[in-house]
Amino acid sequence: MLDSRIIEKLKAIVGAGNVATGAQELLCYGYDATQMEFHPDAVVHPASAEEVSAVLKLANAERFPVFPRGAGSGFTGGALPKGGGVVLVTTRMNRILRIDTENLIAEVEPGVVTEQFQLEVEKLGLFYPPDPASLKFSTLGGNVAENAGGPRCVKYGVTRDFVMGLEVVLPTGEIIRTGGETYKGVVGYDLTRLLCGSEGTLGVITKIIFKLLPLPDAKKTMLTIFDSIDGAAKAVSTIIGNKIIPTTLEFMDHATLQCVEKRFSLGIPETGRAVLLIEVDGDRELIEKQAGRIQELVKPLGLVECMVAKDAAESEALWKVRRLVSPSLRDVNPTKYNEDIVVPRSRVPDVIRRIDAIAQKYAIPIVNFGHAGDGNIHVNVMIDKEIEGQEEKAHGAIKEIFQAALDLGGTMSGEHGVGLAKQPYISLELKPEQVAAMQAIKRALDPNNILNPGKMFPV
Amino acid sequence: MLDSRIIEKLKAIVGAGNVATGAQELLCYGYDATQMEFHPDAVVHPASAEEVSAVLKLANAERFPVFPRGAGSGFTGGALPKGGGVVLVTTRMNRILRIDTENLIAEVEPGVVTEQFQLEVEKLGLFYPPDPASLKFSTLGGNVAENAGGPRCVKYGVTRDFVMGLEVVLPTGEIIRTGGETYKGVVGYDLTRLLCGSEGTLGVITKIIFKLLPLPDAKKTMLTIFDSIDGAAKAVSTIIGNKIIPTTLEFMDHATLQCVEKRFSLGIPETGRAVLLIEVDGDRELIEKQAGRIQELVKPLGLVECMVAKDAAESEALWKVRRLVSPSLRDVNPTKYNEDIVVPRSRVPDVIRRIDAIAQKYAIPIVNFGHAGDGNIHVNVMIDKEIEGQEEKAHGAIKEIFQAALDLGGTMSGEHGVGLAKQPYISLELKPEQVAAMQAIKRALDPNNILNPGKMFPV
Repeated sequence: MLDSRIIEKLKAIVGAGNVATGAQELLCYGYDATQMEFHPDAVVHPASAEEVSAVLKLANAERFPVFPRGAGSGFTGGALPKGGGVVLVTTRMNRILRIDTENLIAEVEPGVVTEQFQLEVEKLGLFYPPDPASLKFSTLGGNVAENAGGPRCVKYGVTRDFVMGLEVVLPTGEIIRTGGETYKGVVGYDLTRLLCGSEGTLGVITKIIFKLLPLPDAKKTMLTIFDSIDGAAKAVSTIIGNKIIPTTLEFMDHATLQCVEKRFSLGIPETGRAVLLIEVDGDRELIEKQAGRIQELVKPLGLVECMVAKDAAESEALWKVRRLVSPSLRDVNPTKYNEDIVVPRSRVPDVIRRIDAIAQKYAIPIVNFGHAGDGNIHVNVMIDKEIEGQEEKAHGAIKEIFQAALDLGGTMSGEHGVGLAKQPYISLELKPEQVAAMQAIKRALDPNNILNPGKMFPV
Repeated sequence: MLDSRIIEKLKAIVGAGNVATGAQELLCYGYDATQMEFHPDAVVHPASAEEVSAVLKLANAERFPVFPRGAGSGFTGGALPKGGGVVLVTTRMNRILRIDTENLIAEVEPGVVTEQFQLEVEKLGLFYPPDPASLKFSTLGGNVAENAGGPRCVKYGVTRDFVMGLEVVLPTGEIIRTGGETYKGVVGYDLTRLLCGSEGTLGVITKIIFKLLPLPDAKKTMLTIFDSIDGAAKAVSTIIGNKIIPTTLEFMDHATLQCVEKRFSLGIPETGRAVLLIEVDGDRELIEKQAGRIQELVKPLGLVECMVAKDAAESEALWKVRRLVSPSLRDVNPTKYNEDIVVPRSRVPDVIRRIDAIAQKYAIPIVNFGHAGDGNIHVNVMIDKEIEGQEEKAHGAIKEIFQAALDLGGTMSGEHGVGLAKQPYISLELKPEQVAAMQAIKRALDPNNILNPGKMFPV
């Protein structure tokens, strides 16, 4: 518990109206997209880097932990105040400071919502590709802290690839700039990318300079249904091997298709065992040519059906299949453990087969979909916590799923990070020497272990 | 001076034939592309990560400095053994371990020469875009350590954007893996990109996993001559603003053109004040369309002449203008200080004007060319060291050039790094708090300051 003297000091920094200690607000800022919940002692809403700095300096002087939080849409508990302390919410810092159409860069505060930023730059003919599923509510600061991904990353890269520079408050309260307004820049260590994906443990991001692209002229969507997972996986490598890198290559396995079909009766053929939702974007004539070529290429791979959207409305209809996945999953079982393993593209069929075997062993449904283009599969372990033993089974299955991904040359997480949720498993992936190097960096920048303590590293 | 006991221990690690202490070899491994020279006490040529590890553990036990070195083609003295110690040369580790055509990745040892790697992957229809000017002799390990760039980076990104994972020997001798074989991956801190551009101060790279792309079908080259720098700069932003991102947008200023023309009489029109060498690559039909569109777009911008290559031979002839720049510079003055500032694209005319004023102030020729697409200009301060006072003048001019780049929102270095050459100036760009954060990381990973000491940070 923080004593009232500290609460008063926090109020002096950010203003009394921006410090909350009421039960309701402590509840509201104590959860995220996991099913975990931890109550902080106070919630502060700073409006500037200077205020963040003052909060962190106070935290170092008084030795209380600070947990940075954007929209709280994370899947691994990265923003949760385990053990209590102060939640520092960045959503008041929500201005788009500038969009430079000549140099194709933008400077924003961390609390800007991802989709809002995308829509603003698109109005100017520009493009910010990273598109995490949470984009309607997630903040850009959170996206950077977690190095968020999304379907379009196969062609355009992840959040990191669009971050040129940051303003960051270090755990000890110093405000620094990293990187800059130029894409090339090699003066000093690359603190910008060290901060990307550091899950709020190395600094609080207070400004971000993003690289933008010209908005593509047009896009073309196809839904391709295959009679086997191998066919769908082969399609991915064949398309890319033929020099076409689609914007998205979204994959759904048989269990996913069954869920969606059962609930929404979209008319997916019964022989369909795997679906790829393929979208290409760019020059209008080129994408027509690419769409034609993709259809030729996938035909011999056990194609059951290929639907090509003629316009935006038909494209939307095809995307519906993908968008209905999440709501359909609730029919399987009430609790979803959503993991986000990655394997090298060519190993997707192997990992799906291993996951199917794990589902049978533990007798719990596991539904797989995701970004086949970069081998990033969302593995949804569906359980009912009311049934005794299911939660333990889920954890057993998850550990085996992670091990399968690692055995095949992959990683436990492509998008969600470690936070608290993957902390028990991190030693499967990282060797003690790797963890020691990371912890040495953490200690160097946060000697009092103030910022988001107890996350990421093995406990 | 290392005592003979240590030399014997080094011989025991890498083999007697792989430790050199003769005057000739100490000379050969004591210089780079700067005009600096420092003699080491010994040169070791390890063949594996285990040997590198043993050398570094010995260095920590006996407290001698180790300077990692690839081909020694760096422009900032990053590999030079200032103060003496052991130069650790990576060129025996020169195998391409695998090229995975299905997942578009390759694993290499650090001593592979950049161009050799490019040619090998191109044989398989794949593409490794980063193309530093030194590619015929620079090593991939050096490219990663310096985060090398090149003309094609405007479209494809820098070395960092192609590094997926590393095997690294930490300064204290632990061998770790960072990143992996998947492009997405967010488990733990991004040590991979922290190592990229760390100039051999945080670890010795012993393996690299690179991301590859499909080799573009075709390319199309144009040489455009403008009557002003502003016209050329406007051309850059107009082309990109029209959704065409060329592979290269190489810029040459009036002084550069005069040098080349004087020596080689290529027939560049006298009214030409700036040149852009533009290349687009990709789908054959699309690039024809883009080339046509580029010609339309640049016409109203003070275009003096536009030459479009019809085939590879004509393309080569156009590239000749750019390639003859370096040999021509020797005619201006014998000593070249080659700086590599970056400014936001739109500020290129401003920075060139400021550099011209600096050249007049100090009465020394300054010749500018480089990568206009990403605002990365090679500023060549040409002096004759035999003339008294010229070296001091050069340093004065360089400091003002860096300040001009920084005033315009840029950086002192886009490709070359800091090393020893830019060390006296680093405080112009980095604030004490930034440097302190970087030095804290250095100390955390290299507590005895063994690896490449005395580089990068202010002295």
